[in-house]
Amino acid sequence: MARDTRDRILEASLALFNARGELNVSTNHIADDLEISPGNLYYHFRNKDDIIEQLFARFELRMDKALTAPAERLPTLEDIWLQLHLVYECIWDYRFIYRDLVDISSRNRKLRMHFSRILKRASEGAIEVMRGLATSGIFRANAEEIRATATNILVIATFWLNFSAVRGEHDERESINQGIYQVMLLIAPFLRDTERAQLTHLAAAYLR
Amino acid sequence: MARDTRDRILEASLALFNARGELNVSTNHIADDLEISPGNLYYHFRNKDDIIEQLFARFELRMDKALTAPAERLPTLEDIWLQLHLVYECIWDYRFIYRDLVDISSRNRKLRMHFSRILKRASEGAIEVMRGLATSGIFRANAEEIRATATNILVIATFWLNFSAVRGEHDERESINQGIYQVMLLIAPFLRDTERAQLTHLAAAYLR
Repeated sequence: MARDTRDRILEASLALFNARGELNVSTNHIADDLEISPGNLYYHFRNKDDIIEQLFARFELRMDKALTAPAERLPTLEDIWLQLHLVYECIWDYRFIYRDLVDISSRNRKLRMHFSRILKRASEGAIEVMRGLATSGIFRANAEEIRATATNILVIATFWLNFSAVRGEHDERESINQGIYQVMLLIAPFLRDTERAQLTHLAAAYLR
Repeated sequence: MARDTRDRILEASLALFNARGELNVSTNHIADDLEISPGNLYYHFRNKDDIIEQLFARFELRMDKALTAPAERLPTLEDIWLQLHLVYECIWDYRFIYRDLVDISSRNRKLRMHFSRILKRASEGAIEVMRGLATSGIFRANAEEIRATATNILVIATFWLNFSAVRGEHDERESINQGIYQVMLLIAPFLRDTERAQLTHLAAAYLR
């Protein structure tokens, strides 16, 4: 029962943060939304940052799962496509983090270190997949190019929602699709001609 | 004389914003720094956002100049290198904008539209240069790939300082160099083998 309330608080917080922006949601808003007393909320969480930290932990687990490369075989182009999907779905489900990332991470050192660790894992995951594609002979890049490309993928995935917002785009769901497209076209030039055409074709489906 | 004071206020504001972060600097701090009265400052500027808007106008002029492609001849790899330098020097000189971009642009619609226009020009500039390289036969990409790559370059240049901060890097001057490196490696895979090796070699000089 206590476990239930805790879960419900986390789920309601995530929904409210995503809908209204984390900065505009207080613990009172969350308690109101769940029709529980603030006291009940504080029984489960010390403060709003405590809630955010717990959401970060869930986000991290989810992202780790999305980033796991297939074991015991070389990755294919379809694996990359699927992985990109899972990663961007995760970004979508926890979009409040990405929207206010600079603010959240400069305010709370613990969360910054959490996120920094996620970036490190994501980079390792991307490097592993690209190395696998290179071993398969369909991806032509040296170690340095693979490392730099992994970093570029991270920057684009991490700041895509911010970039769309600065450009004045308001449909975040639509932006997520464009973000997938942008990463696909970042990878494409390293592929053999057949696979490059194939990926560019697949990518086009993400644009309106 | 009045003109002088106006200029001095803008220069002091830029220096303070860059050093301490725009959010931590008030008009009083600026007046103190210049040893002028707040009244004198308000004679020249309505408020802090007015100062920021004037700085944005200077930034925009500077960025426009950096983005201008060579006229009446096809661009070379050296042109790209030079252009990247000028753009990143401009980002460095106005780094307070990039550091707090999401915050500034969500707070002030006028500044957001300014920045959005700069992004549009930057995108057109990058597309023009890549098209020129394609015409010269050293850059292999279709129109769609060029457009997507221009967008990826913008995301990386725009959010590189934020990305470095989230990763916990504190030396912004060093980060700027890494940012140049990342964009060079984004362009490299589209080049012919000779130029690709040449660019990757040039780029390596930007890493410690």
